[in-house]
Amino acid sequence: MSAGPKIAVVGATGYAGRELAHLLVRHPSIDRPIFFLREGRDGERRANCITDLYPELRGRGEAPCRPFSVDAVAASGAAAAFLALPHEVSAEVAPPLVDAGLKVIDLSGAFRFRDAATYAEWYKLPPAPAALLGEAVYGLPEVYGSELKQARVVANPGCYPTAVILGLKPLVESGWIDRGRGIVCDAKSGVSGAGKQPKPETHFVEVNENFRAYGLFTHRHTPEITGNLGLASEDVIFTTHLLPIERGILATLYVWLDSPREAAEIEALYREFYAGRPLVRIWSAGTLPELRHVAHTNFCDVGFALDRDARRLVVVSCLDNLGKGAAGQAVQNMNAMFGIEETEGLL
Amino acid sequence: MSAGPKIAVVGATGYAGRELAHLLVRHPSIDRPIFFLREGRDGERRANCITDLYPELRGRGEAPCRPFSVDAVAASGAAAAFLALPHEVSAEVAPPLVDAGLKVIDLSGAFRFRDAATYAEWYKLPPAPAALLGEAVYGLPEVYGSELKQARVVANPGCYPTAVILGLKPLVESGWIDRGRGIVCDAKSGVSGAGKQPKPETHFVEVNENFRAYGLFTHRHTPEITGNLGLASEDVIFTTHLLPIERGILATLYVWLDSPREAAEIEALYREFYAGRPLVRIWSAGTLPELRHVAHTNFCDVGFALDRDARRLVVVSCLDNLGKGAAGQAVQNMNAMFGIEETEGLL
Amino acid sequence: MSAGPKIAVVGATGYAGRELAHLLVRHPSIDRPIFFLREGRDGERRANCITDLYPELRGRGEAPCRPFSVDAVAASGAAAAFLALPHEVSAEVAPPLVDAGLKVIDLSGAFRFRDAATYAEWYKLPPAPAALLGEAVYGLPEVYGSELKQARVVANPGCYPTAVILGLKPLVESGWIDRGRGIVCDAKSGVSGAGKQPKPETHFVEVNENFRAYGLFTHRHTPEITGNLGLASEDVIFTTHLLPIERGILATLYVWLDSPREAAEIEALYREFYAGRPLVRIWSAGTLPELRHVAHTNFCDVGFALDRDARRLVVVSCLDNLGKGAAGQAVQNMNAMFGIEETEGLL
Amino acid sequence: MSAGPKIAVVGATGYAGRELAHLLVRHPSIDRPIFFLREGRDGERRANCITDLYPELRGRGEAPCRPFSVDAVAASGAAAAFLALPHEVSAEVAPPLVDAGLKVIDLSGAFRFRDAATYAEWYKLPPAPAALLGEAVYGLPEVYGSELKQARVVANPGCYPTAVILGLKPLVESGWIDRGRGIVCDAKSGVSGAGKQPKPETHFVEVNENFRAYGLFTHRHTPEITGNLGLASEDVIFTTHLLPIERGILATLYVWLDSPREAAEIEALYREFYAGRPLVRIWSAGTLPELRHVAHTNFCDVGFALDRDARRLVVVSCLDNLGKGAAGQAVQNMNAMFGIEETEGLL
Repeated sequence: MSAGPKIAVVGATGYAGRELAHLLVRHPSIDRPIFFLREGRDGERRANCITDLYPELRGRGEAPCRPFSVDAVAASGAAAAFLALPHEVSAEVAPPLVDAGLKVIDLSGAFRFRDAATYAEWYKLPPAPAALLGEAVYGLPEVYGSELKQARVVANPGCYPTAVILGLKPLVESGWIDRGRGIVCDAKSGVSGAGKQPKPETHFVEVNENFRAYGLFTHRHTPEITGNLGLASEDVIFTTHLLPIERGILATLYVWLDSPREAAEIEALYREFYAGRPLVRIWSAGTLPELRHVAHTNFCDVGFALDRDARRLVVVSCLDNLGKGAAGQAVQNMNAMFGIEETEGLL
Repeated sequence: MSAGPKIAVVGATGYAGRELAHLLVRHPSIDRPIFFLREGRDGERRANCITDLYPELRGRGEAPCRPFSVDAVAASGAAAAFLALPHEVSAEVAPPLVDAGLKVIDLSGAFRFRDAATYAEWYKLPPAPAALLGEAVYGLPEVYGSELKQARVVANPGCYPTAVILGLKPLVESGWIDRGRGIVCDAKSGVSGAGKQPKPETHFVEVNENFRAYGLFTHRHTPEITGNLGLASEDVIFTTHLLPIERGILATLYVWLDSPREAAEIEALYREFYAGRPLVRIWSAGTLPELRHVAHTNFCDVGFALDRDARRLVVVSCLDNLGKGAAGQAVQNMNAMFGIEETEGLL
Repeated sequence: MSAGPKIAVVGATGYAGRELAHLLVRHPSIDRPIFFLREGRDGERRANCITDLYPELRGRGEAPCRPFSVDAVAASGAAAAFLALPHEVSAEVAPPLVDAGLKVIDLSGAFRFRDAATYAEWYKLPPAPAALLGEAVYGLPEVYGSELKQARVVANPGCYPTAVILGLKPLVESGWIDRGRGIVCDAKSGVSGAGKQPKPETHFVEVNENFRAYGLFTHRHTPEITGNLGLASEDVIFTTHLLPIERGILATLYVWLDSPREAAEIEALYREFYAGRPLVRIWSAGTLPELRHVAHTNFCDVGFALDRDARRLVVVSCLDNLGKGAAGQAVQNMNAMFGIEETEGLL
Repeated sequence: MSAGPKIAVVGATGYAGRELAHLLVRHPSIDRPIFFLREGRDGERRANCITDLYPELRGRGEAPCRPFSVDAVAASGAAAAFLALPHEVSAEVAPPLVDAGLKVIDLSGAFRFRDAATYAEWYKLPPAPAALLGEAVYGLPEVYGSELKQARVVANPGCYPTAVILGLKPLVESGWIDRGRGIVCDAKSGVSGAGKQPKPETHFVEVNENFRAYGLFTHRHTPEITGNLGLASEDVIFTTHLLPIERGILATLYVWLDSPREAAEIEALYREFYAGRPLVRIWSAGTLPELRHVAHTNFCDVGFALDRDARRLVVVSCLDNLGKGAAGQAVQNMNAMFGIEETEGLL
């Protein structure tokens, strides 16, 4: 493990935490990471080393585990901390860590909204301090990349919003959408997005050979999507579905154009928007990405199909919900914050 | 096996044919069915008995298999024939069977359009004779039930159209939809809908842990949907996706209402429309059916979610693509044609 | 629902209970069943009707649910009660129900051993009263069928033992096995066998795309197998593995023969042993059953492969762990106890 | 891509070829690889670049594709060629490549047997030239590692033999096995092991929710196992089963010990045997590896369970059939042949 910033990870027992562990123990431009585990949930399995938690990592990378406390993290010499914690714990833990001089990359929803009221309405939880909310950067590097370098707190986006925003942003900014028609975002996710806590809904027998819509009109990612796209909520329907697979989100995005467009124009629009952004891959007109193209990667792939009437447009955006949708994007944010090559540790 | 009409099945080696075999060998109100297999594809495995093809049926029901010819079917004494054949073979085989006095229930697309030009445009195949097309009944009993009793040819609907039409028909007829907004039909299907012929796209490794959209703006079921719903094609986007499961279609249907409605009104609309139709099950407002509720059944389940603004409405319609989406509906049609109780052999 | 014995089911919220519900609401030769739910686990979802618990049954069959108490069952007029309960609850509930005059079919392990010490050693639970243990019949109809008619308590076998015992019994009785070699029973099961309670090991993400051995040398079904086959435990290795599927057990059974045998001899041995037993299907020499042949059925299918040296023999035995491995066999036992046709309600 | 040997890959359209492509385009110690595609099968999709075949590699690595001919490979300046070809094509192509001075790593079965007769008997194909068979090294580095450095032809082992041999070799060499008892090797594999060619047996619907034994007593990997373990075929039963997952092999290996042993002795035996071999990971006594621990890795993980009688022993050996079972092991062999660190490009 070469030199580079010293990195702490708080919480490592969920699926995003596991993915972070996989990425960080092999990241070539950081110092060996330290994992801080909470008593109870995290500490259920007492671990001295990350391979005690994840035996599949043995022989690939080692990293110590320690009991979590804000003081322990502050004293560890880490320059930054990833928080893979429940929302309410992140809201509580991030402020003292920032005060202690660490940069914080939070994978929960706690810092995704500048407006505390929106958070409170959708999450039914007490919001983080307003000052910190106000300065937190929404960690979607392809959209807010310039703000990352100075950020003290980065709110890593939700998995669904990453797919939907990256899929629609160029179109929304182009002004080509017929807003009168309404925009539909039909998203489907693998089960790791539902978390590791055993629940009836994630029991193998309930998910396997099944498919269902859930959280209609109530999913917490809704305001993250409309807010960052600048769309009125009444013009958008966003739905989520559970796929019987481990990982991956595919969003099928529906718009009507205000006037006929060529497929080549649309492809060019996307290619220009994402020029120089290696982790968004645009597919040529007439081809569509599939989940298998992005599973176990840190890319977001975007393709589209245009009807012969040149008005009805379907955009397909997909990613690995644990990669570009969570841990991979968190590492991409870390890279930006420390001036490391954007794709380092992510290919 | 009790008395009742004598039934022939032409083609039994595809997935719809297999499902028909499962249903018919145990149907209590028909005579023992006879399966007619074509040389080549069907005859690959020479079978004297349906259990040679489907060993899982041993001990549950027996039925003879014979080489197919129009004459053999005509001479069999069958009152009706199910055709589980490629479109172009159905188009050729159905007319002489009708001439021979049999009622025909065709599971292909050959008789689904009164307008031969629509068929030719979407299927790129020569259409069936216009006269027979003209009299064929679209076999969706909940919509065209009254015509079934006298029908000589029934075109069994496509699996996707069955789910989409049953999900939207009450709403479209109500006039409550804001037509200016556009209607989105995002449908997802299990793999048995793609047929039994081994292809790269149906190889386990390509489907498993994968999910993809396909056939965008080109799927043959598109005109079947818009035609039977009476919708202008430019107002509708219909897409299809491949789920990594064996069976089941779930369609998520998006409409904006022209004015605010109560959930109770919408539920009542659906319940009234399907009153007395035992194979469509309406879910109470606030609950949604999942694929596991309809897999291995012959039901179509319909539920919905209405946003707090009472304008944005999502309808979820699901069925087993081999059950209500194919063989089950074919048997339901047969029951109607012969005056047998609608659900006989289907529960 | 026709006349016939009145049937009670105690416990209906686990997977075996769900399967029982599916079978019993459509069983043609019994009176409508009554489901008794325990407070807490069973009563989590308050249900008045079995379709409240299992909406997929709507339109197929109805049956009332009532709060469980021994008195309530006794007062219900039921002639028999199925117990789909934890072992320790069955051990407690069965005696008073027998005293009240009901026949009891218990799906737990509580009555599977005549010897209370064996039960206590493997289950670490207090055994049922010795007298009742002594008279309980092990409910494997193909082996102990003659005792079922008079039985007051039937211990429905475990899913693994059913597959292994049915697969090996004819061979063991034949005396053809080279006992010096040892017998290996490598069994694989779908996840529904692990129960419905959400646990880390049954989380979709832990099971999907995974496969593992578990319970080596400690599985509770071990003494049930050696005991009913009359084998010394040191000559047998029985292992269990978890398949990433919902339902089905396939056991690969390995023996060396004491002298060379013809495949035809072996097939004849099995066919004779199971003559007149419609729910065990013997496959012809050279063909092997697969899980898909028995999933969603109540059969046990048995096939074998013999090496060219005519000494090494592999038997494959498979069944649906919820069908012939649990609820289906329980209904088969009920049929035997009440003089109903063996396969009634099971095809 | 740094300097290092220039590498050719012949055949890249099967699953092993795809995995090789993933490993080689990111291997840090070789020159950019060149892929040679055969007309027909390989050339179905005309590809100029490996990302044309595998779009998921875009942004991660590029490598040119060229039409295959022996002359083209010889003229490419490559120091070594991987052959991911059908057996009979490898047998034909390897000799001229060796003559042209390339080292050959063959992933087929063509060079796995020194004895041409064994190959001919099990593969029913004409064997490669005897001289080359005689010098080919069986590419299992943990067993034959010392011979790899000088090898001109390396026969990359089969996926099943790799798992079984690595799992049993220490025990067989120890002499602790009771040979009179017989050894059972019950192996289960994911579907990618069955190849990419669409066949009825690999259709999603045939594999999904299914499990079956296949190739009993006829699997071509049988003599590879008994030969390399030095066991008499009549004492071993090796079976193979198809798991409904993409990748992974888990072998459950059964032996009786000749005298009681401590678990610690057995663990020590394995740890000593594989000391200094980073790609075989031994699990502590009482713990067992699962497929998820090795999927998408290049490790073989081995664990065991010993009965209380200290005589009955079950060893579990598992690996990714495309990793340590094919492409990963091929790269490990390449590393050994070129003096590159053993795990380079493989963690």
